[in-house]
Amino acid sequence: MTWRLSADDLPDLARGATLLGTGGGGDPYIGRRLVERVLGDGSIEILDPDEIADDLFVIPTAQMGAPTVMVEKIPAGYEATAALRILEEHLGRTAEATMPIECGGINSMIPLVVAAETGLPVVDADGMGRAFPKLSMETFAVYGVHGSPLALAGENGEKVVIDTGTDDRRMESLARAITIRLGGVGHIAEYAMTGADVRRTAIPRTLSMALSLGRAIREAREANRSPYEAIEQTLSTTLYRYMRRLFAGKVVDVERRTSEGFAKGVAKIAASDGSGSTLELRFQNENLVALRDGECVAIVPDLICVLEDESAEPITTEGLRYGQRVQVIGISTPDMMRTPEALAAFGPAAFGLSEPFRPVEERAGVTRQDVVDAGLEA
Amino acid sequence: MTWRLSADDLPDLARGATLLGTGGGGDPYIGRRLVERVLGDGSIEILDPDEIADDLFVIPTAQMGAPTVMVEKIPAGYEATAALRILEEHLGRTAEATMPIECGGINSMIPLVVAAETGLPVVDADGMGRAFPKLSMETFAVYGVHGSPLALAGENGEKVVIDTGTDDRRMESLARAITIRLGGVGHIAEYAMTGADVRRTAIPRTLSMALSLGRAIREAREANRSPYEAIEQTLSTTLYRYMRRLFAGKVVDVERRTSEGFAKGVAKIAASDGSGSTLELRFQNENLVALRDGECVAIVPDLICVLEDESAEPITTEGLRYGQRVQVIGISTPDMMRTPEALAAFGPAAFGLSEPFRPVEERAGVTRQDVVDAGLEA
Repeated sequence: MTWRLSADDLPDLARGATLLGTGGGGDPYIGRRLVERVLGDGSIEILDPDEIADDLFVIPTAQMGAPTVMVEKIPAGYEATAALRILEEHLGRTAEATMPIECGGINSMIPLVVAAETGLPVVDADGMGRAFPKLSMETFAVYGVHGSPLALAGENGEKVVIDTGTDDRRMESLARAITIRLGGVGHIAEYAMTGADVRRTAIPRTLSMALSLGRAIREAREANRSPYEAIEQTLSTTLYRYMRRLFAGKVVDVERRTSEGFAKGVAKIAASDGSGSTLELRFQNENLVALRDGECVAIVPDLICVLEDESAEPITTEGLRYGQRVQVIGISTPDMMRTPEALAAFGPAAFGLSEPFRPVEERAGVTRQDVVDAGLEA
Repeated sequence: MTWRLSADDLPDLARGATLLGTGGGGDPYIGRRLVERVLGDGSIEILDPDEIADDLFVIPTAQMGAPTVMVEKIPAGYEATAALRILEEHLGRTAEATMPIECGGINSMIPLVVAAETGLPVVDADGMGRAFPKLSMETFAVYGVHGSPLALAGENGEKVVIDTGTDDRRMESLARAITIRLGGVGHIAEYAMTGADVRRTAIPRTLSMALSLGRAIREAREANRSPYEAIEQTLSTTLYRYMRRLFAGKVVDVERRTSEGFAKGVAKIAASDGSGSTLELRFQNENLVALRDGECVAIVPDLICVLEDESAEPITTEGLRYGQRVQVIGISTPDMMRTPEALAAFGPAAFGLSEPFRPVEERAGVTRQDVVDAGLEA
């Protein structure tokens, strides 16, 4: 269903997008402020991917860079639209819609900034179904739409076009090199595609899912209900289906460094139940793997999210602090993110992890059959 | 005068271009082989800058990267033409000629490869009047023609277009980042300009000068005359006018490293006259400064060239070896490379050297008046 998003929706959307950012994706608060400034009391048309024309020409827009830098280097707001215009000029074709390339973190907001600035609608879908650290980690690429040509705009009017044919990893590498030289943040337009491509390669309705999740958390808090149950209930009606509480405890150690344009690190959480258990989270922008006393309980591409214990407010890796009381949850990703091709692009091995992928619901001792029995299958 | 260059000219041209490379610019031997392969027994039209039409559309072509890498990563030959085509497509305009951006080293040859492949003529001029390590160190830029948009082609078909407006240092920085990710070498087309721009901003007739220098050295050797006197005589009829023998000795130490895409280092030469003197050469791709017992005897942008003692065969910094018997000569650069604007772009301070620029002929105790008296003024 096509719907309209207004500034009132942004706080809930930002909360949901932070959750789907799985610790990374940049802080959507900054993106939210950018949208608010441009949107005023207007609204943005959000297109349902099942309803768009086969030949609708879509140019996704995003920001790239290390979240640690993004927090300190706030964009002026026009850069993503500049990137869209560079790509339009390069292709000799005008965009009819924009779309997120990732639905977690600040990149759920950047296409909204572009939409507010240009009047373009936004397609309710994305290519990561969460946040990932690299531009090549896209279901778009996995299912045959490539990122090249990519357009990149810098804050001082720099314009770069990169075309590596079907080699999306090389595209990522070259765009990353430019972004580092630009001070750590660049704005991009890439993965130009048609409406038919969207239906074939994108994770559908992730923008509305982020909004629903953020709203469900808020409404549960307001009604003194459990926000975790609200998250679980909201997911049960989506392609994500399954949530599992992995750990509750106190952050006792956070080690992070910005290296080669990424924020990498490890966080340790001590159990609050007196069991002496520890959860170790390893991240590269996003949380990659959760180890409970050395045993893997969730691994990329499944979502591993850290939330403030009582309020269920999601916390990004750069927001992790010693002493925080947190809950760690795992969320199952859609089937199209778990195929062998998808896992080759953004499964554990793509991050140098030797642990094989196994769905969080299986690791947690719940089989697919249990899920079906519980009526959670779509 | 317009003339034609054939494969027979290439050995002399390569020798002269190595001399003008002042230790850097990459080994023209590889470029020479590329030209020979494409050219066969054909020839290339070389246009005199004074005779071209004001509106002739010229796209210079070049290779960028650390010479140390260039020697090991030999280009396939088509990359520079690919870069030219990328820039033509981006600008929506077809090149009517190509031109070197530097007249020293391999980049004297790359436009010839493009010419042989495309049938385009080559303008007898360049923007460095020697070799420099950075794309922003161009008389083109100093006198108002900017490098953007720059097109870069990689060996696997990568295409990149970079536009930083009038900021040529930013252009250099972004192109360098891409080149490093491509493995250390990239091929570029940049500084697109008209014939009128060439006359206003380029160092004229440096291609024919390189050829004359290489030929003079060879002919002197064949006639058992001093090749050093032949170099001096050849230069006296050009904008370069003045040559000074700075030092003769044996290479006793060479220290080099490839860092951030550049070959940086220091070479030490012990005097062969038994005086105990030492000459220290510091280089970043090219020789930057010559210190005789700590005293500066020549500094960038003047040319500092190391030649094999007897044959006067020029030696690149990556060709320097312990035990070589060498002569070090200084050559004065044209006046348009010594203006305050020019020195800001490629004088000592641009390389982080605190020593101010003073012409090699003055440092050598010969005043401009002596030069005029000797009939060497143009």
